[in-house]
Amino acid sequence: MEHGNNGHKTAVLDTAPKSPANVASAAGRGTLIIIGGHEEKTGDREILHRVAEAAEHKKIAVATLASSVAEETWQDYKRVFRELKVKEVVHLDVPDRGSSFDKAHIDTLDGASLIFFAGGDQLEITTKIGGTELCDKIQDMFRKGVAVAGTSAGASVMSETMLIGTSDDQSNIAYSMAPGLGFLRHIVIDQHFAQRGRIGRLLSAVARNPRMLGIGIDENTAIVVNQEKCDVIGRGSIYVIDGRALTATNLANESEPNSMSIYDVRLHVLNCGDRFDLASRKPLGHIAQTDREAKQSASR
Amino acid sequence: MEHGNNGHKTAVLDTAPKSPANVASAAGRGTLIIIGGHEEKTGDREILHRVAEAAEHKKIAVATLASSVAEETWQDYKRVFRELKVKEVVHLDVPDRGSSFDKAHIDTLDGASLIFFAGGDQLEITTKIGGTELCDKIQDMFRKGVAVAGTSAGASVMSETMLIGTSDDQSNIAYSMAPGLGFLRHIVIDQHFAQRGRIGRLLSAVARNPRMLGIGIDENTAIVVNQEKCDVIGRGSIYVIDGRALTATNLANESEPNSMSIYDVRLHVLNCGDRFDLASRKPLGHIAQTDREAKQSASR
Repeated sequence: MEHGNNGHKTAVLDTAPKSPANVASAAGRGTLIIIGGHEEKTGDREILHRVAEAAEHKKIAVATLASSVAEETWQDYKRVFRELKVKEVVHLDVPDRGSSFDKAHIDTLDGASLIFFAGGDQLEITTKIGGTELCDKIQDMFRKGVAVAGTSAGASVMSETMLIGTSDDQSNIAYSMAPGLGFLRHIVIDQHFAQRGRIGRLLSAVARNPRMLGIGIDENTAIVVNQEKCDVIGRGSIYVIDGRALTATNLANESEPNSMSIYDVRLHVLNCGDRFDLASRKPLGHIAQTDREAKQSASR
Repeated sequence: MEHGNNGHKTAVLDTAPKSPANVASAAGRGTLIIIGGHEEKTGDREILHRVAEAAEHKKIAVATLASSVAEETWQDYKRVFRELKVKEVVHLDVPDRGSSFDKAHIDTLDGASLIFFAGGDQLEITTKIGGTELCDKIQDMFRKGVAVAGTSAGASVMSETMLIGTSDDQSNIAYSMAPGLGFLRHIVIDQHFAQRGRIGRLLSAVARNPRMLGIGIDENTAIVVNQEKCDVIGRGSIYVIDGRALTATNLANESEPNSMSIYDVRLHVLNCGDRFDLASRKPLGHIAQTDREAKQSASR
């Protein structure tokens, strides 16, 4: 075993980024790529290109825990990542919790430069590997600098506390929450965001504890998180919901009627090229433009 | 003819509420009830009850201009308003623009205490009556204190500039705008809001000119506007989008890619019982609760 419980605890203290308490940020040194689902798998493939780059084209472990069609999902991503010149693509195939204790699965991760969580049902991921040595190893690798990416359900599990879905078509509080894998601190993620009209449930999740920064990610859109900064890539938008200045809500009471009231939310909509500071909760502008301006001013 | 063009102009100056420039408010003295569509027509019928009350149970003119099934729509509302003890319910049936010049239609409105715009296609309303004497008469009645209500398309036309829809499932700018009937100043309305995931298009409409306060109304939910105050009734939520503090957007350029970037939007989510001040753009709290607290403190 690579690390005992004590060694693990020490690792948390030693290698986690030095963010003050209650500051939204990644919980490790690795790059995180969080995708809103339905990323392009043919043609341009901007997002999966970025995933391959974050893996330095070395070794990607594709975790299909969430998927009910794990083999198909694996074959799909294997093809794409091979096409994108990733040297080694392996399958982290954990059909049930029993399998997650299997040393062969744990060893699959050795030398991986990126771990990719495919879509499906987020509770399948956390019920299968939560609290196992396999999960500890993933967390540990991330803390030490290995990149992690996830799409759809694989995006939701990045949160400390994750949203699990029910009805998508009401501006109500018809959803549940469960502990996620916690790659992000003080952040709650939602995916398929505009496509499934999820602003209501993310607003209500943030209002219930404004310590959490809400990040809603459209399909074929992603954020690339490095500790306290995130960059937007892909075709859609990112919705950032900051509830710190919230002045009132009716969501303290579980038995409230199924509509909500929340005053003074700050909302940012970001698109490809935008950078956001998770710690200060402020947009840092359009990076592509900034680069262009820098080049222009350099050429003057 | 009740009023010439000059008389009309004077009426605008004399009877419009005395709001400062650029302050969101109703443009007349009448009560406005703006409904997000699909209001209950059987059972509880909270919203249509409120409409009947705003008419003082006297005379409601049901305008079915937007509807492709005008007769059916009319029969539906006639039944409901009769059940709700409205003394007289008449049909403003304008199948085409030609008919809107018909004196019989104009006379239908005489003595009406409320004009109700049913749902359908908002452009059907403005193309049929925009700029006609019939439209002038409605505006004039509203300015002088007659109530106006509208649901769905009938809600959208309340705006100065109205949203007309295309795709609902993308967080992009796939919509158009057209001049509405202007019962509201400096406000743009959207309906079927959570149900059709319309936050993206309303945000983008507001970002294009933050003078406009954006109000998104869920189905079976309504706002009751009296000059500068609005109250929420019904089962869903109201989303108020205030762009005045906006610091940046990419929406200045029509040819921008189909995703948007908007920094520093202020958002309020309101539900039944909440009151909002359109002029200061601030929530005034939960009226039911305030009433309850007042009673409690009175009984001490």
